[in-house]
This record gives sequence, structure tokens and C-alpha cells, in this order.
Amino acid sequence: MTALLDRGRALTTPVLRAAVERLAPPMDTVAAYHFGWIDAEGRPSDAAGGKAVRPALALLSAEAAGAPPEAGIPGAVAVELVHNFSLLHDDLMDGDEQRRHRDTVWKVHGPAQAILVGDALFALGSEILLEMGTVEAGRATRRLTVASRKLIDGQAQDISYEHRDLVTVEECLHMEGNKTGALLACAASIGAVLGGADDRTADALEAYGHHLGLAFQAVDDLLGIWGDPQSTGKQAWSDLRQRKKSLPVAAALGSEGPAAARLAKLLAEDAQKSQAEFEDFHEAEFAERAALIEEAGGREWTSQEAQRQHTTAIQALDSIPMPGRVREQFAALADFVVVRQR
Amino acid sequence: MTALLDRGRALTTPVLRAAVERLAPPMDTVAAYHFGWIDAEGRPSDAAGGKAVRPALALLSAEAAGAPPEAGIPGAVAVELVHNFSLLHDDLMDGDEQRRHRDTVWKVHGPAQAILVGDALFALGSEILLEMGTVEAGRATRRLTVASRKLIDGQAQDISYEHRDLVTVEECLHMEGNKTGALLACAASIGAVLGGADDRTADALEAYGHHLGLAFQAVDDLLGIWGDPQSTGKQAWSDLRQRKKSLPVAAALGSEGPAAARLAKLLAEDAQKSQAEFEDFHEAEFAERAALIEEAGGREWTSQEAQRQHTTAIQALDSIPMPGRVREQFAALADFVVVRQR
Repeated sequence: MTALLDRGRALTTPVLRAAVERLAPPMDTVAAYHFGWIDAEGRPSDAAGGKAVRPALALLSAEAAGAPPEAGIPGAVAVELVHNFSLLHDDLMDGDEQRRHRDTVWKVHGPAQAILVGDALFALGSEILLEMGTVEAGRATRRLTVASRKLIDGQAQDISYEHRDLVTVEECLHMEGNKTGALLACAASIGAVLGGADDRTADALEAYGHHLGLAFQAVDDLLGIWGDPQSTGKQAWSDLRQRKKSLPVAAALGSEGPAAARLAKLLAEDAQKSQAEFEDFHEAEFAERAALIEEAGGREWTSQEAQRQHTTAIQALDSIPMPGRVREQFAALADFVVVRQR
Repeated sequence: MTALLDRGRALTTPVLRAAVERLAPPMDTVAAYHFGWIDAEGRPSDAAGGKAVRPALALLSAEAAGAPPEAGIPGAVAVELVHNFSLLHDDLMDGDEQRRHRDTVWKVHGPAQAILVGDALFALGSEILLEMGTVEAGRATRRLTVASRKLIDGQAQDISYEHRDLVTVEECLHMEGNKTGALLACAASIGAVLGGADDRTADALEAYGHHLGLAFQAVDDLLGIWGDPQSTGKQAWSDLRQRKKSLPVAAALGSEGPAAARLAKLLAEDAQKSQAEFEDFHEAEFAERAALIEEAGGREWTSQEAQRQHTTAIQALDSIPMPGRVREQFAALADFVVVRQR
């Protein structure tokens, strides 16, 4: 598993760095900081990047279509650029000050640079693909653009949910399908599209990626409440601090019984509070909310949902032929996504 | 001339509105407010939009390639979407509270919506083109993406120049070529690309649009200092209030003599002031700076520069064949751009 992620990172990073070097100063420096290649003072750095699930998927996707993994590289780079565009803008919109144990770009370089560099990475994603000049690259860019719009829709929904008392499980899954599922779906199919796969193959790979994304997000939602800050790099009770209506909360509120009722009452009161009042909460108050979510079944339901999405993801691959080794690696990636601790 | 702009607006607006309706709520409403189709309370409105130079150019561009004007519509819509993405983000980054006599989106709907809706319009631009599924649409999208990156580079340069004492005329022209020239170049060529023109034709049209953009921006820079607030919809001395290093300022500072020296001294002092102190200036203090810029020759130089760019734009068309009527309309558009009062 680690070998697969390492391969994705090793083949993608040099091309990604070369792409980012195209940015005009000071955007190239700001982007290099975001990716962890330099620190806030501009010194070379080797900060831990993301898990690199998307690049691994894109290369595997090329192999699913019978092409060499290298055929997926421009797709992997384009997807990484779009993913990081969304991180830059989301961190600013959400006011998140930390990502991967480091200060976020808007915190270090200011809001304008976070907006600008995000915009530039977004544009660069299409540019990298379209300059290939092939019909396949045009198809890949179209899929990437559709996925990007879903990503943006998902963020819009996520923001609007934070101002609401109640979000249903269905609304939450729809939002997460957009915000996380769409780009993983694109990563899982873009290599195949670049490798010349037909639409049926690309669509099946997209379905795998979509459900993988929902499994990934279900685990993320669990880690956002019960994750170990040492592993996740986020504050304890991170999602509760932000009043996020994540899956465990939605599932808990949708259940019956005294724990759900008490939780609903507390969250309704919380919604009336200012962010400052909220941040003054004692740890025990977040712990109480987390315990109620668990008692109302939100933790267990979300854990099972991750398993259900995992199963659906694997099944989506049954309809298309691919080398046995590639199929096994898609399965291993799905296993990794649901057992990870960060 | 008005007929040409009206045709562009009439053929483009319905397709633009249908595209914007694809956005998920509340982004569709926020975008409709930005375009002036509804007011801040959501009531239908008919606010004066932009001058619609870009749509007119895109349709004319199709005709230059021997295609019907309608062939340029998806290009006109895509360019308008990218243009408005940049307005939404720039207004937020620059802290501009008014555009076209109305409160800007971040002022009415908050920064997060300005970022999100900008992102969505940007993605929609490529989506509209790529879903045509033709080779020409792929080429058009590639040109649009390259232009978008230049647009972003130009905004990055513009922001960095505001913190500097001195910007040369060359730096200023380079920034304005990116910020204004690139997208007008794209508008002037995208219809031809969609209409099947070869690269030589598209490149000549791009050159026309690039120089037209520089002429446009030179006039904008004049209006930004000496424009009538009633016509421009901006505050008097608008660019001086923002300490913009626009062409008249750069040209004045690059000249010799007592007015340039006195201006340099004043602007160096201004650079030390906070934005709040600066906004407390009396009108007379802005008037003094404007008078010094004029005395140092900055106004006259910029006015001549607009004429020079106008001439170069027209000459760029000489190398390619096109119907005489279309050539006349390109010339009329260039004339309009340099004589406009808003």
C-alpha cells in the first residue's frame, strides 16, 4: 500500500513542482509554502504533504485502461492542482489556521495571496491537460471541470449547513459526494481517459472513486470528532469546534431517544452563541457533545457507512475488465482509506 | 457602434443567464446580483451591466473567420464568465465597495460568497466550451485558460505594485497587458477559433485584442484619476485614493523636472501613511497630486499611449483577410474604446 502511494508521489511531484514554477512571483513562493516545499521564511523544507491518494489513483487508473502508469501523470498533476486550489480557498473561507501541522496560507501570506494562488492553481490544472493537445486531454479536462464545479457546490453547501440547526443524513451525503466524492471520482478515472479508455470504463472508475470518496469522508468525519490530534494535525474535537454538521452529527440527530433529544437541544443553544463564546468552551463541553453523538448512534452509523461505501466502491469495478494486479491495488487503496488514523 | 455592442449583449445574455442558472443555491442568486439581474433583496432588476465590449468582440471574431456571429456565442459567454470571476475576486482583494454604482458582492453577501461564486463562474467558463465536445472548443479552452492565468498574474502584479514607491512604465504596461490585454485578446480571437480559423488568423486577432486592451486600460487609467464620478460610477480620484501605480503616475514619475520630483516626494510620504489616514485626505490633496501628474506630463503621455496602442491594434489586422464590413467594425470598436467617458 505504502509503495503505491509512494509511487504516485514520486512520479507526480517533479511534474507538479515544474508546473508550480510557472507561477509569477510571489505566487510561486506562496504555492511552494502551501505544498510544504519551503517554510514561511522561504527556506527549503520537507514538510509532510498530504496522503497522496489522488495521484496514486490517477496512475492506477491509467493501468486499468491498459496504459502505462506514466500516462496518468498529467491527470494526477491536474487533480492535485485542483485539490490544492480548493484547500487554499476553503481554509480562508472556513477561517482554518492550521493544515498538516502548519499555519495556513492566508494566515502566513494574507487573504489576497490565498485567493490569487488558489485561482492560479485552478487555471494551471486545465492548462497542464489542454496543452497536451489531444482529444483524450480535452475529454479529461471536461471531466475535471465538471468535478471542480461539484467541489465548489459542495463547499457552498457545507458553509450554508453551518448556519442551520438541522441537516439530514441525505443532505450531508449529497454535500460530501460533491465536496470529496467528485474529485476522487475524477482522480480514479482521469488516467484511464488519458490512456484512451471508453466512457463505460471511465464511468465505472468514476463510480468507484465516488464511493471511495464517501468512505474517505465518513472516516474523516469520525477523525474530525474522535481523531487523535497528534495524528490528524487538527485540534481535538475539531469539527465540533466549527459546529460542522458532519455525518455523525446528522445521523445522531436523525435517531430517536433521549441522547438525540439532549444533543438537539444543546446544538440549538450552541447555534445562538457567537464564535468567540463558543471557543471559550471547556474541553468537557465538547466531550459531552461527542459522548451524546456516540450514545445516539452517530459514531457507529458513520463507521458502518464507511464500510458500506467501501463495498459499493469495490463492486463498481466488477463491471469492467482490468489486470488482476490493478484490481487488487484499487481494493488495497479502498482498505487503506477506511482504516487510516489521519 | 452601439448596434454592435447591443447585438453582442442580446445574443450573449440569454445563454449567460442559462449558464448561471446551473449554479447551486445560493450561488445562483449571488451571481444574478453581481450581473445586475436582481437587487440585494432578490427582486428582479435591470441594473446597467458592463459595456459588453468582450461579447461584441467574440461575435465579430467569428465573422472574421467567415462564420456566422452565432458561432462565437459560447466563446463570448465563456469570456464573460471568466471576466466576472476576476471582478468578484479582485473587488474582494482590493476592498472595493462599489462597482457600476452598486455595492459589490463581498459587501452584500460576504467574502466567502465572493470567493465561491468567483470560483464557480471560472469553472463554468471552461465547462460551457468543453461540453461542445469539438476540437475547436478544446483549442478555444486552451487559449482561455492561458489568458486566465495571465489575468491572475496581472492582478498579483497590481497588488504588489501598491506596496512599492516606484513602478516603471514598462512594469505598468506589462501588468496591464496581463490584467486587461490577455482577456480582450482572447475575446477577439475565440470566435474565430470556434469558427475554425487557423492559428495565424487567431494570433493576429489576439494581437489586435491585446493592443486594444492596452488602449482600453490607458483610457481607464485616465478616467481613474480625471473621470467624472457621475459617468464612471467610481469616487473622484478613485485610483489616487487606492495609491494605484497606474500609467499616468508611472509616466509622471519617469519624467524629469520639478513636478516629477515634488510628486515623488509626496507619494513616498503617502506610502508611509495608513489607509485610514489616507482616506481622511481633503479633496484638495488629491487634486494637488492629480495636478502634479498632469504637470509632469503623465496625463498627456497616457493619452498618446492610448492612441499608439489603438494604431498598433488596427495594424495587427492588416496581415489577415476578412470581410471589409467586419474590419470596419473592429476599427469602430477600437475608436469607441479610446473616446469613451466611462
